[in-house]
Amino acid sequence: MSTMNLTLLTDLYELTMMQGYFKNNCNETVVFDMFYRTNPCGNGYAICAGLDQLIDYIRRLSFSDDDIAYLDSLHLFEDDFLEYLRGFHFSGDIYAIPEGTVVFPREPLVKVVAPIMEAQLVETALLTIINHQSLIATKTARVVYAADGGGVMEFGLRRAQGPDAGVYGARAAMIAGCIGTSNVLAGQLFDVPVKGTHAHSWIMSFPDEYTAFRKYSELYPDACCLLVDTYDTLKSGVPNAIRVFTEMRESGIELKNYGIRLDSGDLAYLTKRARQMLDEAGFSDAFISASSDLDEYLITSLKSQGCKIDSWGVGTNMITSRDCPAFGGVYKLAAVQDENGNFIPKIKLSENIEKITNPGNKTVFRIYEKADHKIKADLICLADETFDDTKDLTIFDPLETWKRTKLKAGTYELRELLVPVFKNGKCVYTSPSVMELRDICSKELDTLWEEHRRLINPSQMYVDLSDQLYDIKKNLLHQMSM
Amino acid sequence: MSTMNLTLLTDLYELTMMQGYFKNNCNETVVFDMFYRTNPCGNGYAICAGLDQLIDYIRRLSFSDDDIAYLDSLHLFEDDFLEYLRGFHFSGDIYAIPEGTVVFPREPLVKVVAPIMEAQLVETALLTIINHQSLIATKTARVVYAADGGGVMEFGLRRAQGPDAGVYGARAAMIAGCIGTSNVLAGQLFDVPVKGTHAHSWIMSFPDEYTAFRKYSELYPDACCLLVDTYDTLKSGVPNAIRVFTEMRESGIELKNYGIRLDSGDLAYLTKRARQMLDEAGFSDAFISASSDLDEYLITSLKSQGCKIDSWGVGTNMITSRDCPAFGGVYKLAAVQDENGNFIPKIKLSENIEKITNPGNKTVFRIYEKADHKIKADLICLADETFDDTKDLTIFDPLETWKRTKLKAGTYELRELLVPVFKNGKCVYTSPSVMELRDICSKELDTLWEEHRRLINPSQMYVDLSDQLYDIKKNLLHQMSM
Repeated sequence: MSTMNLTLLTDLYELTMMQGYFKNNCNETVVFDMFYRTNPCGNGYAICAGLDQLIDYIRRLSFSDDDIAYLDSLHLFEDDFLEYLRGFHFSGDIYAIPEGTVVFPREPLVKVVAPIMEAQLVETALLTIINHQSLIATKTARVVYAADGGGVMEFGLRRAQGPDAGVYGARAAMIAGCIGTSNVLAGQLFDVPVKGTHAHSWIMSFPDEYTAFRKYSELYPDACCLLVDTYDTLKSGVPNAIRVFTEMRESGIELKNYGIRLDSGDLAYLTKRARQMLDEAGFSDAFISASSDLDEYLITSLKSQGCKIDSWGVGTNMITSRDCPAFGGVYKLAAVQDENGNFIPKIKLSENIEKITNPGNKTVFRIYEKADHKIKADLICLADETFDDTKDLTIFDPLETWKRTKLKAGTYELRELLVPVFKNGKCVYTSPSVMELRDICSKELDTLWEEHRRLINPSQMYVDLSDQLYDIKKNLLHQMSM
Repeated sequence: MSTMNLTLLTDLYELTMMQGYFKNNCNETVVFDMFYRTNPCGNGYAICAGLDQLIDYIRRLSFSDDDIAYLDSLHLFEDDFLEYLRGFHFSGDIYAIPEGTVVFPREPLVKVVAPIMEAQLVETALLTIINHQSLIATKTARVVYAADGGGVMEFGLRRAQGPDAGVYGARAAMIAGCIGTSNVLAGQLFDVPVKGTHAHSWIMSFPDEYTAFRKYSELYPDACCLLVDTYDTLKSGVPNAIRVFTEMRESGIELKNYGIRLDSGDLAYLTKRARQMLDEAGFSDAFISASSDLDEYLITSLKSQGCKIDSWGVGTNMITSRDCPAFGGVYKLAAVQDENGNFIPKIKLSENIEKITNPGNKTVFRIYEKADHKIKADLICLADETFDDTKDLTIFDPLETWKRTKLKAGTYELRELLVPVFKNGKCVYTSPSVMELRDICSKELDTLWEEHRRLINPSQMYVDLSDQLYDIKKNLLHQMSM
């Protein structure tokens, strides 16, 4: 992806609308918000991710001669518009919540302030990129939470929805707390740890399992993880592994970072028995790694049965977010700038009250409890509103407005979540490395109460509107219904 | 993807195993089969897809200086092995079932016959590519079947799992019968029809809905599809669309290829009312297009309620195959060539009898009923077996061997499904265009009985083993259990 021109990675209607704006000479500056309505997988929060790839996409936006020729071949676009596209580049502003941040429904994760033709063009790719990585990061945070300190390795490339899904999915999984990935290209692109040993085919290509193990141990004495389930885990695999570990010890090799991997069978029963066999043979520091259709629920269930698993290789269910394979991010017009430079709020109605958009040029503040730095609530407000945290602050639920909370001065702290990423088409933001994002994300997760992290039916975080924003929304709804 | 070096798009263990084979001087020729065990989404078959991208990947396989430097930085690989990788290219044979073909569980979709180091390296990317496109093609075939002649448009890019998932997902969806995609890049890359009109933001950026519609109709009089659900579908959207269509007709424009699109609300109720309103206004040839969380089940349900929808825009649920977002293709060692050139069959055991692999260097024949060219069964056999369709043929179920069927000479036809794709590292196959594959797939689907196409609980196709293959498998199992 990083070397490809993705300018045409867009829905056709973005281009037909662009031509419409072009022909009508309307290219006023507008505000679009990218936000989502429901946390994936029944989670209590999401982790936003993908901003670095979005930046890359915006920077490279330009129509090549081939692109123009292709669009011309569709017989939909006129010469003057195609000529405009030839010189196209993004000239607007973009604000975003940094990657690795804990986020909640309805708050803008990305805000685009740009001439409408530009803001419209970038909709589709922006959604594709942010939706995908935020989905996998959120799913991974659940899996890592279930592993409860055990390492989680991302092993899903072969079942990912195409190469990008494997590579950028691995990136998102690393941000959200994996200790490594099997994906070598992701390792190269993002400088993250790569993990892996051998497959059943290695075992099967030798005359017997013992020989296969021994050959492997000779080659990788410092990272000797033996796959024990090719023939019979307890009768053949573990005994052969113990035989090889014993020979290694007897030949004077200092055993460290060694162990076994299981990829099938009943992982609770087999790992308890294997642990016992390894311990009895004097290999109590050998690790046990497991894979096989794992997800956050199976990990929780296996742990509740006392399985002896030190690290988890998670594939299909994490790289596809199997129980919820799409993050429902949307991109909605929120305001149009008038000739005086004022942003006129716009609203999208819906029969479903939760689907009505929040109008205006907005930002998001996070309110922390000062005492423990846990999140108290998020506050969506107009971009030019200011709050003084040396004074009391009253927040209220935008749907059930009688639910009010008064925050006493000095007990809370405010942080604006949206930061400038592009200004007048220039990137003004430097992305941290993926391993730095992993640290940031880990600290972010610490700002949540356990009640928000529970895998099933977690507490929902309050995301409130400021008084000013609430009034604008109410008035617009009133006008529309007249 | 097509311009990127994907050589490192592999699991680390493929490379550690390669070095293992290298260091042990074992690089004998082996046979690996790529196959799957269960049809996705409870379907009665799958559509295989992705071969053209696999060919591209294999052709471009080579380690760049950067790749070698990266691998060196991992401190896992020795200089002589890295030197070998520098000169690496694929030198083996690949056989595959052509794209767009109807396939069934347990039959090899791709067979790699190559020195084990090469066959091992390509495992991961081969699976990623074929799994992804076969998944989306199969899901799409279900959606297209439900639409029962109504056009299905692929609208999922913004919810796809990354750019590749959008682009190659659109490709697979076109192969399986979509009439177009919103994805412009897919249109450019694969020369397939692109579709789309405008979004709610177009309506909202004008002072009122009528003006927005009128402006759009002036620009695109020959493809005037108006989105009617921004404010109120029946009270505002459809009346304004009728007003604009009336003005177009009055101004002498010949109305053709025009209509409305709905993206929310109760699509059965709203389209029945909208159809009535359009008909009463004299626009009975205006089409009605609908989108909004569609899948094969909702389409079936809406049709059963008499909805008036001519074409369907299907997004998230199809591009992610939401109810089953992974195609479980695997890649297993089936045989190792000995010094005399004979292929020695290999088998992978499992406690689950259905997970035991089929050993040997194999191929697949499809048996058609001569009278109607419907599929009777598939037959997996050894690659060098021959069958004479002028003689009777008895086939039997490999698990329930007492289930036998005798096919009388002259009543059936045989077709070998696997075709050569690479010979000694050279590509010997020319991929049809995507629109040609769409025709091939359509004819393939005609070889299925309706009973195999039913969306829920379809009949399962027989996939049998030849007598020779069955005996080899039985004997290997017997040896292993001694």
